[in-house]
Amino acid sequence: MTQKKWVYVFNELDQASAYVGGSWDAVRGLLGGKGANLFEMYRIGLPVPPFFTVTTEACNAYLASGEKFPEGMWEQELDALHKIEEASGKKFGDPSNPLLVSCRSGAKFSMPGMMDTVLNIGLNDETVQGMIKLTNNPRFVYDSYRRLIMMFGAVVLGLPDEAFEEPMEAFKHQKGAKADTDLTAEDLKELSEIFKKVVRENKGFDFPQDPIEQLRLATEAVFKSWNGKRAIDYRRAEGIPDNLGTAVNIVTMVFGNMGWDSGTGVAFTRNPSTGERKVFGEYLLNAQGEDVVAGIRNTDPIEKMAETLPEAYNEFMKICEILEKHYRDMQDMEFTIERGKLWMLQTRNGKRTAKAAIKIAVDMANEGLISKEEAVMRVSTKQVDAMLHPQFDENARKAAKKEGRLFATGVNASPGAAVGQVFFDADTAEKKGKEEGLQVIMVRPFTKPDDVHGMLAAKGILTSEGGATSHAAVVARQFGVPCVVGASAIRIDLEKRQMKVGDVVVKEGDWISLDGATGEVFLGKLDLTVPNLEEQQDLLTLLNWADEIARLQVWANADYPKDARRARSYGAKGIGLCRTEHMFFEPERLPIVQRMILAETIEERKKALDELLPFQRSDFEGLFEAMDGYPVIIRLIDPPLHEFMPDEEKLFEEVITMRVKGETKGLAEKEKLLASIRAMHESNPMMGLRGVRLSIYMPEIVEMQVRAIFEAAANCTLRGVKVKPEVMIPLTGTVKELEWIQPRLERIAKQVMSEKGVNFPYKFGTMIEIPRAAVTAGEIARLAEFFSFGTNDLTQMTFGYSRDDAERNFLIKYVEEGILEKNPFQTLDREGVGRLMRMAVEEGRRTRPELEVGICGEHGGDPDSIEFCHLIGQNYVSCSPFRVPVARLAAAQAAIKNR
Amino acid sequence: MTQKKWVYVFNELDQASAYVGGSWDAVRGLLGGKGANLFEMYRIGLPVPPFFTVTTEACNAYLASGEKFPEGMWEQELDALHKIEEASGKKFGDPSNPLLVSCRSGAKFSMPGMMDTVLNIGLNDETVQGMIKLTNNPRFVYDSYRRLIMMFGAVVLGLPDEAFEEPMEAFKHQKGAKADTDLTAEDLKELSEIFKKVVRENKGFDFPQDPIEQLRLATEAVFKSWNGKRAIDYRRAEGIPDNLGTAVNIVTMVFGNMGWDSGTGVAFTRNPSTGERKVFGEYLLNAQGEDVVAGIRNTDPIEKMAETLPEAYNEFMKICEILEKHYRDMQDMEFTIERGKLWMLQTRNGKRTAKAAIKIAVDMANEGLISKEEAVMRVSTKQVDAMLHPQFDENARKAAKKEGRLFATGVNASPGAAVGQVFFDADTAEKKGKEEGLQVIMVRPFTKPDDVHGMLAAKGILTSEGGATSHAAVVARQFGVPCVVGASAIRIDLEKRQMKVGDVVVKEGDWISLDGATGEVFLGKLDLTVPNLEEQQDLLTLLNWADEIARLQVWANADYPKDARRARSYGAKGIGLCRTEHMFFEPERLPIVQRMILAETIEERKKALDELLPFQRSDFEGLFEAMDGYPVIIRLIDPPLHEFMPDEEKLFEEVITMRVKGETKGLAEKEKLLASIRAMHESNPMMGLRGVRLSIYMPEIVEMQVRAIFEAAANCTLRGVKVKPEVMIPLTGTVKELEWIQPRLERIAKQVMSEKGVNFPYKFGTMIEIPRAAVTAGEIARLAEFFSFGTNDLTQMTFGYSRDDAERNFLIKYVEEGILEKNPFQTLDREGVGRLMRMAVEEGRRTRPELEVGICGEHGGDPDSIEFCHLIGQNYVSCSPFRVPVARLAAAQAAIKNR
Repeated sequence: MTQKKWVYVFNELDQASAYVGGSWDAVRGLLGGKGANLFEMYRIGLPVPPFFTVTTEACNAYLASGEKFPEGMWEQELDALHKIEEASGKKFGDPSNPLLVSCRSGAKFSMPGMMDTVLNIGLNDETVQGMIKLTNNPRFVYDSYRRLIMMFGAVVLGLPDEAFEEPMEAFKHQKGAKADTDLTAEDLKELSEIFKKVVRENKGFDFPQDPIEQLRLATEAVFKSWNGKRAIDYRRAEGIPDNLGTAVNIVTMVFGNMGWDSGTGVAFTRNPSTGERKVFGEYLLNAQGEDVVAGIRNTDPIEKMAETLPEAYNEFMKICEILEKHYRDMQDMEFTIERGKLWMLQTRNGKRTAKAAIKIAVDMANEGLISKEEAVMRVSTKQVDAMLHPQFDENARKAAKKEGRLFATGVNASPGAAVGQVFFDADTAEKKGKEEGLQVIMVRPFTKPDDVHGMLAAKGILTSEGGATSHAAVVARQFGVPCVVGASAIRIDLEKRQMKVGDVVVKEGDWISLDGATGEVFLGKLDLTVPNLEEQQDLLTLLNWADEIARLQVWANADYPKDARRARSYGAKGIGLCRTEHMFFEPERLPIVQRMILAETIEERKKALDELLPFQRSDFEGLFEAMDGYPVIIRLIDPPLHEFMPDEEKLFEEVITMRVKGETKGLAEKEKLLASIRAMHESNPMMGLRGVRLSIYMPEIVEMQVRAIFEAAANCTLRGVKVKPEVMIPLTGTVKELEWIQPRLERIAKQVMSEKGVNFPYKFGTMIEIPRAAVTAGEIARLAEFFSFGTNDLTQMTFGYSRDDAERNFLIKYVEEGILEKNPFQTLDREGVGRLMRMAVEEGRRTRPELEVGICGEHGGDPDSIEFCHLIGQNYVSCSPFRVPVARLAAAQAAIKNR
Repeated sequence: MTQKKWVYVFNELDQASAYVGGSWDAVRGLLGGKGANLFEMYRIGLPVPPFFTVTTEACNAYLASGEKFPEGMWEQELDALHKIEEASGKKFGDPSNPLLVSCRSGAKFSMPGMMDTVLNIGLNDETVQGMIKLTNNPRFVYDSYRRLIMMFGAVVLGLPDEAFEEPMEAFKHQKGAKADTDLTAEDLKELSEIFKKVVRENKGFDFPQDPIEQLRLATEAVFKSWNGKRAIDYRRAEGIPDNLGTAVNIVTMVFGNMGWDSGTGVAFTRNPSTGERKVFGEYLLNAQGEDVVAGIRNTDPIEKMAETLPEAYNEFMKICEILEKHYRDMQDMEFTIERGKLWMLQTRNGKRTAKAAIKIAVDMANEGLISKEEAVMRVSTKQVDAMLHPQFDENARKAAKKEGRLFATGVNASPGAAVGQVFFDADTAEKKGKEEGLQVIMVRPFTKPDDVHGMLAAKGILTSEGGATSHAAVVARQFGVPCVVGASAIRIDLEKRQMKVGDVVVKEGDWISLDGATGEVFLGKLDLTVPNLEEQQDLLTLLNWADEIARLQVWANADYPKDARRARSYGAKGIGLCRTEHMFFEPERLPIVQRMILAETIEERKKALDELLPFQRSDFEGLFEAMDGYPVIIRLIDPPLHEFMPDEEKLFEEVITMRVKGETKGLAEKEKLLASIRAMHESNPMMGLRGVRLSIYMPEIVEMQVRAIFEAAANCTLRGVKVKPEVMIPLTGTVKELEWIQPRLERIAKQVMSEKGVNFPYKFGTMIEIPRAAVTAGEIARLAEFFSFGTNDLTQMTFGYSRDDAERNFLIKYVEEGILEKNPFQTLDREGVGRLMRMAVEEGRRTRPELEVGICGEHGGDPDSIEFCHLIGQNYVSCSPFRVPVARLAAAQAAIKNR
């Protein structure tokens, strides 16, 4: 039996690859991401300092066996050390020509902060002297030495940082040194001794002078760091499995500070902030890597290297091209030049801004480096989203936090940043915003439908109650208004017109800044940057590619013609949800609506409805015109009638007050109105008299609506507009509801078409938002020509969560405790709600193979949910206009991922 | 091709049977129930007047072809007529020896009132003379003749009754006759002429003198009556299919009024009211059947026939025995004796009271006439239910209605009759009922958990709001208190302490009587009859047989030891649901509960919980003792905390009033309490912070409860009681909730057992009442050792119906309009909710084959729902103690039906 191979030397990539079966992913799994890239660079002939890697399997074996190196590992590591001694011509522990190495962890996925690097392993009291001779720079060598002891002490031996920092401060004070740089070579030598004493006193043994012992301990420390608290927390947060383990990379140290023919730098193959196709980086002559990062000296742009180190520069430029072509992605590299010789220390796919990500993806596809599919996969939906909303300047955000201006944090309900003055009610917000032209942030404990006019006039919305699908959140997303909800630390005092967190008071008119993407609320103004879709040619190109690839269409939820126009300009191929009741809330219409509701006879009711008909008809004409050629799904009235009535509590207070004061004028009227509103009261309105139930209870309203829809469609047809109206019946729970209402409505549709003498295609269909509708979808599809999943309500009822309450009460705790992986109102619960959806699609299509299936809940704009919609074979997703670009990308990514 | 056979003569049963494939059910389908029994009686040699039957197929063919007799039918009918002429020795239309026949409809299922019988077909001006000679009774013959014309005119020719009644009244007036009996033979002859004139004037043709024409028209009329409005309405109401059609029975007339050796009667083979095994009936000498029914002369009990017509009597007694043995059920028969010769005119299974049904079933099984299974199937669950509740005397009910004392009608929420004085709040009701010993009917618009003490002290409950699963209804059923809810015509004025329907006022203290089985509310007192299970030996026997047969066990929902004892005495084999929160509402505990809820620190909360622990422990000890040897499922706290708090609206009113009046004393406290209550407010509490969510939010409460359960179980074990506690976690929606809470609770369980040094079997499980729980039951069963379907909530969420609102708002309309076949809160919706339940059982058992599955929702006491529970393989159903006997029978019937 051959012994298992635990250690791979720089030229053994093929063996590692063969061992794991050949895939690059598996190689990364065995050698870690950092290690794998070092091997790969070596393999394609790039200059990498001699190195070897101890595998993740060794780490796992070590941890599994109670922290013992697996059999043969250490011997293999020593063998590998000899091989890099040979390759480098140096010798570990040899005072005359010492080999120094770095020791770094490297897991399959990057885990920053898991463990610090230990540099300069191999230095001891003897090799220090050899290094001084080699470098002629005793200060650098002693500095390296004291750093090794400190880093080793902290990282490997587990001493607290203060154990070194306190004596160092004392020493500097004694020497009269302000900065570390004020210390001389002699001082640093002395400090090394002090640090050695720290180790001895704290650990009871000396800092190991034996380089081999240093290496062994460092290797073990890296292994152990896999189960350190920081690493575990990070894995939890990022969803990285615990069983991967980390590799250990041992790399020959090279020095950029060996004179003016030496240097070090970092660079990207393209500009990570703009995406421009030009190497972007910085370097320092006669310096070490940490000097570039620390910013002690001013770095030079990489271009300048062409003058100072032309040969190395040219070689590096070639390497950039090779690496980008090789990895087919923008690379982020570290390099060092030691006495004119270029060494590559790291390469990896570079992080980039949203803008750069899009430009690079599109450019690379145009250059033929990657396919359009790859380009589509290279950009995240978050990056596209970021391109559509104003954002805070990151430096401004950091500065504000430092200054203690973070006022509160809530649920990130609608992305985008907003700066404005605080107003505490809808009327004032509208007045200040529309009439006075102020930048308004509307602040409320929570919002209601009759607050919408104020919300529309605001740049941002902040509530102290409610969750991601509360009224405020839904409306805000719908209209693309940045919004933070449920910032529960805030106490709003509507009477005093102020809000407080602790002692910090924000009064009406004060400025705040809020970020709907992070949920942060700042005091005062933060600087904003504002992107614009039409000007973003690269993004438009990418989204067109996405449309070619996607199988799902993207439609939009839009209630008004202007929203429909925006949706269309963002690429929507239809309206998946027009909520007709929003039209009822407009100030000139609401009194008619209330009259209609309170009508005591059918005649009175019909009279009020006759007054509403022209309003609705003209709204619908606008929608049809905006969506010329595309389908428009109009949902019949859904909310319970009491939502259109004045606030019960306020009215009750007025009545009580009048009674106590003995005022009688108007009291009887108010009492009557109160009684009417109370008669409409429901214990659980979410599950009450609404949707199709209301239509069956009071069919006159939807009869008017269907007449308005078909009159509008007929008028548009006569004007040459191509209309495709689809009438959607909400809240169906049994096919018998459709059997009751749908034929009556279809009769009206046909009647209007015959009155107007026109013909156009139309559909009648239903929302699937009641669990029972999903369970009996096969029956429902007998009548319904289309399904639209109302996943907000479907999620509410499948989970039994009231969305108005749950996020505030227990959902946050549930997500924190891991009881729910994600907020199911933001990301579709595939296991529960999704299973019902899948049943509905399958059984609905069994009855009616051509059944059109979409989604119009909040989830229609969520990438993970969109993937699920793709998987169950929906025809489209519908989301708020501002989410359309994101959804287009997500639809394409879903198609590619699941080919 | 032989012609289809449309008509069967009395001796052709074998042919009919062969044609339909031999089953009795199919024979009834072809010949109708009445006809089939005539054939059967003939077949077994009983004396039946010669007859023939036109098939239901002929009826269907007639109706399908646009009211044309199918080919050959009429010829077959004339042939058949000849055959009965031969058999009877009489001749149709022969003045010297005329054959007269009756013509009756007879569908597969009895449809009373669908069509009247036409008797004496064959009488005309000529045959009248023959009949007079034969009978020597011209008055009888002319009376028969004028009746024929009248009946024929009304039933066959479609004339309104008044067309005959008005001229008859005028004629009687003219003759000075008060009653019909005052008319002489001569008068009746004259009246025949008048009636013939009525026909001529109204129809434009003469009353058909041709007997064949009479027969043809009567046959057609019976066919047409199948599609008459009355028949269609009846079929709708009874769920009889429209495509069955009716048969037509043509039977030779025999006459009981041909002298003192003739007579007629009706009889049952056993007493239909007590079930006593003795022929029960009445007869009249020298009379026709209608005389018995009309009550013009006093009938004699059947026994007397032994003296007056001993031969016929003996023959009839033999026939009774033959028929009962033959049909293996109690028979309801009509017979006529014509000149000493007994003729059987009808037999059918007799209707009977609940008491008789049970006695007859048990007796017949004991006699070996039927099997125990058949006995179990012979009694309906409604009959068993009727035996357990006080009931109004039916005559008293009829009288009260006649007197206009029916005050209102509502939903029949909890069966049983109650008589008492009205009180309008729980405290008064309790005081009057418990302290003063009055019979109390508690009346409220609706009830809440803190009304329970009043409800328990009441003999009956009446509400003007709410439906069959409102709080009032559920509690009433739970405690077997008769209850009518949602009597929406009633206006309750709590301030004036009165209620009104229109102008009728009932003041506090007035007497009313209500029937929870019919939903009726009467003014004043009605007489009651009160049954008692223990004394009903037959019922006990029947239920024991049911238990032997059933596969489902029947458990009970019981919160208190006394309920558990009752449940056990009613045959419950376990407690399927003990609602621990009911214990929290008791007056001495509620303040502690409120203190616990409002606690600002964990310590304060734990202190309050420590005070509650002994109460709960002693409650549980009582339960375990009562159920010694049987499992007891205890549900951990379920309702949202605000249910334990004072009424928000009332408090708000107090606060406003104090503010307006400028009163400050105690205001701050009230405001603080109001704020606390408001902070708990939820938009949809049904879907809010309750059940396991509350347990995760505030685990201290359930930790206390589990400790109380296990301490109680341990104490009981030490006293020699055999305990089987099962801890039920409510409202689970994801297995992760169980993963969070269950191990903590199991730890406490184990700890208590080890503290007490005892061991007993126990289980932890969950309710399945959230759709998502059903959909992910396979996962949930990893932790849950038992499932209990909470079908109230599961129905609410699967349908999206709030039970507090739906019945009041739209459910009644939905049932009326046929959108819902039945109220899904009363009878399980198999298609939707049931499908989820079936998934849950199948997938739960796939994970855990020994999973115990039950139901504890209201449906656990509903026979149709119990059948479904049987079908999906549940282990038990749990219902209110008072429903246990019903459920036991239903479980057995489900097993028999689905063998």
